[in-house]
Amino acid sequence: PGKKVLIVYAHQEPKSFNGSLLKIAVEELTKQGCSVTVSDLYAMQFEPRATRNDIVGHLHNSEAFNYGVETWEAYKRGGLSKDLVEEQKKVQEADLLIFQFPLFWFNMPAILKGWMDRVLVQGFAYDLSKVYDGGLLQGKLSLFSFTTGGGQEMYSKEGIGGDIRYVLWPMQHGIMHFCGVKVLEPHICYAPENVSEEKRKEMLAAWSQRLKTLWKEEPIDCSPEWYFK
Amino acid sequence: PGKKVLIVYAHQEPKSFNGSLLKIAVEELTKQGCSVTVSDLYAMQFEPRATRNDIVGHLHNSEAFNYGVETWEAYKRGGLSKDLVEEQKKVQEADLLIFQFPLFWFNMPAILKGWMDRVLVQGFAYDLSKVYDGGLLQGKLSLFSFTTGGGQEMYSKEGIGGDIRYVLWPMQHGIMHFCGVKVLEPHICYAPENVSEEKRKEMLAAWSQRLKTLWKEEPIDCSPEWYFK
Repeated sequence: PGKKVLIVYAHQEPKSFNGSLLKIAVEELTKQGCSVTVSDLYAMQFEPRATRNDIVGHLHNSEAFNYGVETWEAYKRGGLSKDLVEEQKKVQEADLLIFQFPLFWFNMPAILKGWMDRVLVQGFAYDLSKVYDGGLLQGKLSLFSFTTGGGQEMYSKEGIGGDIRYVLWPMQHGIMHFCGVKVLEPHICYAPENVSEEKRKEMLAAWSQRLKTLWKEEPIDCSPEWYFK
Repeated sequence: PGKKVLIVYAHQEPKSFNGSLLKIAVEELTKQGCSVTVSDLYAMQFEPRATRNDIVGHLHNSEAFNYGVETWEAYKRGGLSKDLVEEQKKVQEADLLIFQFPLFWFNMPAILKGWMDRVLVQGFAYDLSKVYDGGLLQGKLSLFSFTTGGGQEMYSKEGIGGDIRYVLWPMQHGIMHFCGVKVLEPHICYAPENVSEEKRKEMLAAWSQRLKTLWKEEPIDCSPEWYFK
């Protein structure tokens, strides 16, 4: 109660299974007394491309554009574009970040990757030697909640898709852990499009159920062993 | 000689190190008699978002938008948007796909991820049970060429970034192998921004040198062992 949650949501269709998962999270967390904010990326027509437009006013070095350097400098002088500043404010205020999306090509959809690329700039999310456990977003939690196309049997060590944890490494460790954010167990709904209506209902109920005790969960140990043991 | 190469390039600045790597590839491969095409994603202002705009005309199911289903159906009836059709034509004609980009957050930049999400649709790149070695883009080669921010020592099994091969799994196995494309050894330039000018020149020369004998290379064995052994 009183906790702040930011859900970064990447699906085009409110009636989709991802849309249902989002709805459940908003309802359940609100019922708990949390304050929930949703960044509905497709609805916002969120810009995924990292370009010069992200910097308001003059460039630090207009001879050769370096996105990392320019956004770092712009952050320090308050010169990032408005859409980025707004997302950073949401992140700053949040105790928990939930990412809700369909897995596309063993990864998040481009629109969500663009959110990571553009919002989590140096100076805001990390800095020189302020990375991983020393990252600037310490004290926050994150949770990757996604659906897959393939079934669970595909995503095992022996399956052709490999252990599902392999695809979590770049997202959980490479992004969230890098910024100092603790990571809760991912929430994975396998192949909702290929199961029965009853099974889909069970999956939605399981998500709702999990959220009821979410604040009691311990973060995972985000080390290579968790992913590749 | 006579081979066709598509380079999908994702950097904003021609004067960047990535820009130099691109230039070298175009020059060296052209000198060999290859026909080289470049998709310069930022210059093209390539759209990374997977939306309804990718389908020309009516939807298969306008009640609930499903990107995978809609692009599959649109592909079959020739109803994909023009920018996608053009990229697919380039892929279809290519013997080798080179992806040139800076690693962003343990992954490719969103604009390049968007290229994967939107161009490699079902029916074109894979189909029902036509995946991995049976994928529809069989007979082609691919090569991921990228720069990193962190140094090589960071990306080792014992380093905080983990083995660099961990981040290659979703890209090489999850995308290219999934579509039936063979994968050549990646080409990685570590931290070009943090090394001496001399070292940078060495890295450029090494890329040029590798390209001279590229067509004699054997693809990697794109199995879990290569990544996680």
